[in-house]
Amino acid sequence: MWPASISSARRGILFIVSAPSGAGKTTLINKLLKIFSDIAASVSYTTRARRPGERAGRDYHFVSEKRFAAVRARRGFAEWARVHGALYGTPRAPLEGAMRRGRDMLLDIDVQGARKIKRLYPGAVSIFVMPPSWRVLEQRLAGRGTDGRGTILRRLENARREIREIVRYDYVVVNSELTGAVKAAKAIILAERHRVSRRLRR
Amino acid sequence: MWPASISSARRGILFIVSAPSGAGKTTLINKLLKIFSDIAASVSYTTRARRPGERAGRDYHFVSEKRFAAVRARRGFAEWARVHGALYGTPRAPLEGAMRRGRDMLLDIDVQGARKIKRLYPGAVSIFVMPPSWRVLEQRLAGRGTDGRGTILRRLENARREIREIVRYDYVVVNSELTGAVKAAKAIILAERHRVSRRLRR
Repeated sequence: MWPASISSARRGILFIVSAPSGAGKTTLINKLLKIFSDIAASVSYTTRARRPGERAGRDYHFVSEKRFAAVRARRGFAEWARVHGALYGTPRAPLEGAMRRGRDMLLDIDVQGARKIKRLYPGAVSIFVMPPSWRVLEQRLAGRGTDGRGTILRRLENARREIREIVRYDYVVVNSELTGAVKAAKAIILAERHRVSRRLRR
Repeated sequence: MWPASISSARRGILFIVSAPSGAGKTTLINKLLKIFSDIAASVSYTTRARRPGERAGRDYHFVSEKRFAAVRARRGFAEWARVHGALYGTPRAPLEGAMRRGRDMLLDIDVQGARKIKRLYPGAVSIFVMPPSWRVLEQRLAGRGTDGRGTILRRLENARREIREIVRYDYVVVNSELTGAVKAAKAIILAERHRVSRRLRR
């Protein structure tokens, strides 16, 4: 049925999700992973200490600086960065394995990391989650109750800088309320699975 | 909230739907137009006679050869073609008006027409509806009961030629059963509405 230039099977897709702090990204991602049991989450390597409630292998692969350096030396990371002194890296092997086997993966990653992933894997699909307004973002950040005014203002300034990067993203989902945001993200995942370009023989 | 390079409103989208005869395109399109009351169908001009059950202005704008030639002369068609002696044309004004006003339109159009629309409006989104197999396509064409063996074989040969054009399309929806095909097409429409590129300021 399919013409010779098209494969009846498709390649796996990397879905990148980024958002400023307070946009509701984590809740959205957890919902998506529940809906799509066939999508695996990319698990990053980190050298920072494990926090209460975090599980090794699910939240992060907790490794030593030495181990991290070894993986980096053999080009084992698709992207890596140092944040507040600790190292974070996205391992390449699971991503490339998933794409080959026609399985999809979800990457929870910041704007710098997203840019690197897109450069390495141009077929990756990037989604930016937007808070509905500055007022709501400020309320959400303040609502946590754990942070001082200075921290909140710094987060808002970070958000402003991150939101400028939206032009590099494929899709934008405004998270006014979770149901609508989940519906939009779900549609993006389903639609991308029907792209002809993912079936072209190279 | 939005950075200066991004508009808070998006442009309208042209959704092109093509399929070989027997793929179930018309039923799918009617379903989509029912689900999306905010999507208008593009109505073509034609010089052929109105058939029983067809309504002027809904199925086609039925016009004289002279009128058709006049619209064509002032470049009023986004694409036009002669099929079995009759002229068919897609009027430009409704498409361009819809895009400007941020409204979406659906175009039921063949592979040649789709190619011309894509060249004129690169932001148009093209969806190819595939029958699930040759056997099912043959059964569907034979099942109509109104056509002879020769006609069916000619339609199958046309289908083979049209399916080769699938590489030019953005999306492919395999119509094994209507519910699944509607779900996929609906996701494509929702996803495309969230594309960042449709909000970029020029």
